Amino acid sequence: MKGKVFLVGAGPGDPELLTVRALHLLQTAEAVLYDELVAPEILRLIPATARIHNVGKRCGKKKIQQEEINFLMIALADSGLKVVRLKSGDPMIFGRAGEEIEALRKSRVPYEIVPGVTSALGAAASAEIPLTYRRKSSAVVFLTAHQADGTEAANWNKLASGGATLVIYMPGQNYTDLAGRLKAAGLSAGTPCAVISRASTPHQREFYTTTGNLSSAPKLPSPTLLVVGEVTRLAEVPLRVGNEFPLQSDPAAHYSTLSSTADEEFSL
Amino acid sequence: MKGKVFLVGAGPGDPELLTVRALHLLQTAEAVLYDELVAPEILRLIPATARIHNVGKRCGKKKIQQEEINFLMIALADSGLKVVRLKSGDPMIFGRAGEEIEALRKSRVPYEIVPGVTSALGAAASAEIPLTYRRKSSAVVFLTAHQADGTEAANWNKLASGGATLVIYMPGQNYTDLAGRLKAAGLSAGTPCAVISRASTPHQREFYTTTGNLSSAPKLPSPTLLVVGEVTRLAEVPLRVGNEFPLQSDPAAHYSTLSSTADEEFSL
Repeated sequence: MKGKVFLVGAGPGDPELLTVRALHLLQTAEAVLYDELVAPEILRLIPATARIHNVGKRCGKKKIQQEEINFLMIALADSGLKVVRLKSGDPMIFGRAGEEIEALRKSRVPYEIVPGVTSALGAAASAEIPLTYRRKSSAVVFLTAHQADGTEAANWNKLASGGATLVIYMPGQNYTDLAGRLKAAGLSAGTPCAVISRASTPHQREFYTTTGNLSSAPKLPSPTLLVVGEVTRLAEVPLRVGNEFPLQSDPAAHYSTLSSTADEEFSL
Repeated sequence: MKGKVFLVGAGPGDPELLTVRALHLLQTAEAVLYDELVAPEILRLIPATARIHNVGKRCGKKKIQQEEINFLMIALADSGLKVVRLKSGDPMIFGRAGEEIEALRKSRVPYEIVPGVTSALGAAASAEIPLTYRRKSSAVVFLTAHQADGTEAANWNKLASGGATLVIYMPGQNYTDLAGRLKAAGLSAGTPCAVISRASTPHQREFYTTTGNLSSAPKLPSPTLLVVGEVTRLAEVPLRVGNEFPLQSDPAAHYSTLSSTADEEFSL
C-alpha cells in the first residue's frame, strides 16, 4: 500500500505556533524531510522511531537539489510510510511547494497540504507591528531580495513603491545593495524599517532603522526578515518591558516622538 | 489584579488550523470577544463558563464601533479576566489589531499577540494554489477591494500590476467593478483567477475564471477571497478526487490544457 506525503508548514519557529494538525502529523510521522530553517525545538517533537532527513544541507556541504528531494519524498511514500515534508513558515509562500506538488501528482502519490503561520506573521506578532493599519498601510507585499533584470526588476520596483508594507524574505546580508534597490524603487531615505531575526523564538532580535541607514545595520543571525514601511514605527520597542507593560506615562507620545525622527535612525 | 488580553488569530476556519497556543488560550479563556467571520466549529471550543461576546454584529443589526470593542475588551481585563480577542485569520493582516494594541497600551492592560494562519494561506493550501512559484510569481500581495481615489488608487494599480500573485481579501459581491479595476490596472482579460469561499471548511467552494469573465462569477457565501494570477492555473481542480488522487493518466497535461485556455473561462 502507498503511503502519503503531508506538505506541512512548521510556522515561524515557536513550537506553540505549529497548527494543531501539524503537531499531530509530526508526532505520528514515520519519515520527516525538513528544511534547514526549521527550529530545533520543533524537530524534537518528531518520534525517535521516524526516519529523519535534513534536506536543507547535506553534512554542511552543498545543497540537495530539488529533484533529489522529490525523489526521496516519493520513494519513502512508495514504501508505505507516512511522510511529513516540513517547511519553515507556510509551504505555499517561498516554500517551493509548487514543484513538490507537481512531482507528487506525476507519481500519483497521495498528499495533503497543511498551511502554517508564515514567518512574516510570526515576526509581526512578536515585534507588535501591524502589517496593515488604518491610514498608514492598506496592503502588504511579501517578496524576496532576489536579484532580477528587465521586467522582473521593473515589477519589483512597482511592488516596492506601491505604498504597501513590504516584508522581504531572505534579505541576505548585503544591506547596502538592498538599500540601493529600495531607493531606486523610489522609497525615501527616511522610510522606517526593521530587521527581525529568528522571530518568535527566545533568540529573537530586532533592529530598527530607516532604509537610508539600512547599510549600517548589524548582521543578525538567520532566518531574518526585513519589514519596510510606516507601520514599523508602531512596534512596541521603546515602551515594552517583559513583553507586557508600557513604561511612558503617555504611550501615545511614542507615535509623535517617532514621527519626528523620520529622517534619522530610530534603533534603540 | 489586572487580567490580560490575548489578540489571537483563529486561522481560516478549520479548528485543526488553530495554533497550539491559540487552542490552549481559547480552552482556558474567561471572556472571548469574537468577530463575525470566526467559524462556529472554533467557537464551540470555548468553555461554557466563559463570557462570550460577538463584536462583529449586535443582534444582526448595526456593527459595533471599534471604540466600543476597545472599551469592552479593556473593561473585561480590568475586572481581572483572561480575555481572548479572537480574530479570523491573523490579527496583523486586515484585523484592525493596530487600533486595539494602541488602546491596550494607553490603558496599560497587559497583552500578547498570537499570530494565526491568514485566510489566504488556508485557501492556498486547500485549493492547492502555490502563491509563489518559480518563473510564474516571485511575490504575493494581500490587498482589499476597498475603493480609493488619487494616490491610493494609483498605488493599488501599481500593486495589482507588479506581476505578483494577488490575494484580494473581502472582495465583496461587485465583481463587475472589481474586474474593471483590475483591467484599469493593466491586467489582461485572460489573467486566471479563483474565487474561494469558506476556505479550509467542509463548505469550501471554488470558482475558477479569468479577470475578463469575473463579472459573471457566482456569488459564493462569505468569507470569500479572490486569488489572481498565473498560479491559479496550478490548482488541482480537474484532477482531484477525494482530495487525494489525480485522475488523468498524465497530470502534466493539466498544465498545458489550462495554458491553452488563457482567454476563456476555465471553471469546471
